[in-house]
Amino acid sequence: MIVVKMGGAQGVNLSAVCQDVAELIRQGEAVVFVHGGSNETNELSEKLGMTPRFITTVTGFTSRYTDRKTLETFCMATAKINMTLVEHLQKAGVNALGLSGVDGKLLCAKRNEAIKIVENGKRMVIRDDFTGKIEQVNAGLIQMLLSAGLTPVIQPMAISEAGDALNVDADRAAAIIAGAIHAQQLILLTHVPGLLRSFPDESSLITHIDRRSVETALEVAEGRMKKKVLGAIEALELGVEKIVFADGRVEHPLLGALGGQGTTIS
Amino acid sequence: MIVVKMGGAQGVNLSAVCQDVAELIRQGEAVVFVHGGSNETNELSEKLGMTPRFITTVTGFTSRYTDRKTLETFCMATAKINMTLVEHLQKAGVNALGLSGVDGKLLCAKRNEAIKIVENGKRMVIRDDFTGKIEQVNAGLIQMLLSAGLTPVIQPMAISEAGDALNVDADRAAAIIAGAIHAQQLILLTHVPGLLRSFPDESSLITHIDRRSVETALEVAEGRMKKKVLGAIEALELGVEKIVFADGRVEHPLLGALGGQGTTIS
Repeated sequence: MIVVKMGGAQGVNLSAVCQDVAELIRQGEAVVFVHGGSNETNELSEKLGMTPRFITTVTGFTSRYTDRKTLETFCMATAKINMTLVEHLQKAGVNALGLSGVDGKLLCAKRNEAIKIVENGKRMVIRDDFTGKIEQVNAGLIQMLLSAGLTPVIQPMAISEAGDALNVDADRAAAIIAGAIHAQQLILLTHVPGLLRSFPDESSLITHIDRRSVETALEVAEGRMKKKVLGAIEALELGVEKIVFADGRVEHPLLGALGGQGTTIS
Repeated sequence: MIVVKMGGAQGVNLSAVCQDVAELIRQGEAVVFVHGGSNETNELSEKLGMTPRFITTVTGFTSRYTDRKTLETFCMATAKINMTLVEHLQKAGVNALGLSGVDGKLLCAKRNEAIKIVENGKRMVIRDDFTGKIEQVNAGLIQMLLSAGLTPVIQPMAISEAGDALNVDADRAAAIIAGAIHAQQLILLTHVPGLLRSFPDESSLITHIDRRSVETALEVAEGRMKKKVLGAIEALELGVEKIVFADGRVEHPLLGALGGQGTTIS
């Protein structure tokens, strides 16, 4: 079983990814797809006259400030990506089925009810944020879909205990899903060749990281890559054997990643 | 088994509908939900600076002109409705799962490749429209979800033979789904008390129509109600025993409809 995560398709060779998924399925592999949509949410927000706002927690992580209106925009932008992915997979002969973590309580999360942030050097607490931390995965639902020959394509949302939809980080969602369904491999597709020792110099690619020293990767990782490394650490802890940060822009993004391209953590 | 169809929630008492669904499920009934989203698509289109365009076929039916951009807007607007419905159902204790007709090839349709329309009195042919006519329902997928204790909430899109998403009429989708899964009853919720002999006079409600004379209802129906009557005719032909046009604004929209309120066709 392989979990594949890709961003909102920007820069990624979508049809190449879908061809690879079809090939893996032909080889008897089961694939679960998770996608993001941060850039598309920004674009849609701007078109709708809303200014995306990002918050930085006191511990140094940056995430989207998600009030209800932003959550709805996030839902719409990621739904469009989801549909496009399902269409591409269907065209490649894969019977894909899109769903979000809200559906069938696929991803249950604890809502972030009080986020301590730093803004302009001042500490503040945000209380109307619809984001959360995934605590449970309905692995049975994913297994049922896979057994029926369906390939799940998962929109990065979760459901809170109160039944509200939440925006969750797609990289970490993919990691937790991979752990819950006992996937052997997790491939995180990006628009760089993998983890770079000196970003953005692509020739400084780190090809392999020993699982025992994965924490050191956190020091090298820049920006969004930090969350991918956190996802990788989480996946390792949950029993996933191999994580690959791979280039989604190339001809065979998945077959390449499984063949040693990108950054492999194992 | 009951199929419930509602519009995009405008005017409909959403929490009352969801409470009724929960009550029906407690009574051992299986429910499948289908929703529309025409008004919400118009609103989103306008916010995005697009002017919704409607076309009238030479046979007199009006529908949305759906180029790819409009299809994506339709996808986003109906995805938001879908999520909101799933949230409401989850809050009412119903384990709802949203999906569109594209997912798992739930609804396979023949794309309208050449639509003959009349515009400003002139006949024209439209060839870039992403709409279609449903030809096949993946009833097995719906059955699988129901057997797993899930309540499907279906977004009105279908997949073409070429693997493209299509905009389909939600009333007729609900009718065809009801037929395919051998539902006994189909409830079409509206923001009027049912079929009115002289629209919009609500006191002219027709409470019962014999299934043998349902075609006469087409003469009475105005605007959108015409498609609901067409859906009812289709559902009857497919073996559905009872169709109700019911008021979605009241306290018990579904229990009321099953108890004889609205317009019953049987």
